[in-house]
Amino acid sequence: MDIRSQISTRDLEQFYARALEMAVESRTIIRAAVATGFDVKKKSDGSYVTNVDLKVEDHLRGLIQRHFPEHGIIGEEYPPTRPGAAFQWVMDPIDGTEDFVYRVPTFGTILALHYRGQPVVGILDHPMLDLCVSAAYGMGTHKNGERVMLTDIDPAAIDGSERVVLSARSNFTRFGDDGYLFDAITRTHPNHRIYRSCYAHACAAIGTADATIDYANRIWDIAACQILTEEAGGKYIVVREEEVRDVGRIYSTVFGKRTLVDRLTRHFNR
Amino acid sequence: MDIRSQISTRDLEQFYARALEMAVESRTIIRAAVATGFDVKKKSDGSYVTNVDLKVEDHLRGLIQRHFPEHGIIGEEYPPTRPGAAFQWVMDPIDGTEDFVYRVPTFGTILALHYRGQPVVGILDHPMLDLCVSAAYGMGTHKNGERVMLTDIDPAAIDGSERVVLSARSNFTRFGDDGYLFDAITRTHPNHRIYRSCYAHACAAIGTADATIDYANRIWDIAACQILTEEAGGKYIVVREEEVRDVGRIYSTVFGKRTLVDRLTRHFNR
Repeated sequence: MDIRSQISTRDLEQFYARALEMAVESRTIIRAAVATGFDVKKKSDGSYVTNVDLKVEDHLRGLIQRHFPEHGIIGEEYPPTRPGAAFQWVMDPIDGTEDFVYRVPTFGTILALHYRGQPVVGILDHPMLDLCVSAAYGMGTHKNGERVMLTDIDPAAIDGSERVVLSARSNFTRFGDDGYLFDAITRTHPNHRIYRSCYAHACAAIGTADATIDYANRIWDIAACQILTEEAGGKYIVVREEEVRDVGRIYSTVFGKRTLVDRLTRHFNR
Repeated sequence: MDIRSQISTRDLEQFYARALEMAVESRTIIRAAVATGFDVKKKSDGSYVTNVDLKVEDHLRGLIQRHFPEHGIIGEEYPPTRPGAAFQWVMDPIDGTEDFVYRVPTFGTILALHYRGQPVVGILDHPMLDLCVSAAYGMGTHKNGERVMLTDIDPAAIDGSERVVLSARSNFTRFGDDGYLFDAITRTHPNHRIYRSCYAHACAAIGTADATIDYANRIWDIAACQILTEEAGGKYIVVREEEVRDVGRIYSTVFGKRTLVDRLTRHFNR
């Protein structure tokens, strides 16, 4: 039995509605900041953070606290709240902060609700693309409110023209020496694009790409893509999962159209 | 002496103004088509073409014909007009047609005017990103009408975090076996993104990326990027140029911030 079937439809609908409201609010904050400008800093690991990342996470934490005071919260910019709670909101207020800083419009907000480790609600919101991809358990995946379904790829169409989105090579060498995987994937699937997580995940969930490979990311990066893909009829696999000292748990995922996902996971079994 | 200094300022201003008008018209046609839907076909080389590519090129050819009846026209979708003329309009009505078909918003219109082989006006217009990058000889590069200038990259900042945009690996193997160049560049510069030409070129011209490498493309793909980069104070190099049988002349280019462009060109000298 799927543990998520314990959640009442009424609760599910309320969680989903609140999550969509939160995405609208984060979009409003981000669009205002793009118009007026914002402060940029580098974190100790060399990655970027802006006052907008902090402001969005702060604001969403406040909303969750108000609506669901018993739920836990895991976010990129602040320590976890109520880590023992069954319901956990997981968020990356601005995924692709470097792209945000340089005004590449594919950055976005990742927001999800997990129940005992299983995803219940997932949202990827792209303020500059006017693109919100959302899903809730049993309710399907939606692109700006319109239902989307993935049809599987014909195996004969996996001939090099299949559309694959993946992480930059720097992801593959971030915590180890896995650049050979990037090399193998880009050779076998040469019609690829490289974006950061948020838009990369949206591409696979709505069929803009046939599949996406996101390598070596944190829980807030991958929080929404499983439910978004599965509710669209696609397949989601965690191909690598490990604990990295002083960093935390790292996940590598492959998701999108089933037959291509199966083909792509082979790279990780060798 | 730069041959382009033979052109009067009055003529230059007129060419530039007309080119900007044409970009507005192509944007209008494309946005309407995105809203209503369009027809997609595959060409004999496996690439996509839509009725919108044809409609935009048709419309722009008509405008050029009316305003500048003595000028030549080179476009992706139709045979050249007046190939002997000193002034040549060069266009790709929709660059990144595959992305356009799948609604990846980074596709766009490339439009340029060349005078005896030298670029005089260049425009990259992205209808879904509300991003128009334009330049005219001696008049600077503009992003939605605002002047942009590139500052060079500090050599010490070329440490793997530099932002490089490049073509997919399929470009490097399209007319030969140059995948090793893709492998070498992605290893040396692991913080990369992969987009199609139009947005890839805009990134280097306005400093969104530090440099762009576009491999094995036609004249209409690269028609605007030289003047856009040079008028912004950046550097543009053709690293490969060759005649491919049954295809035509193929160009590979590197452009953006000077010091990084010099570093990137080394990959092609070996």
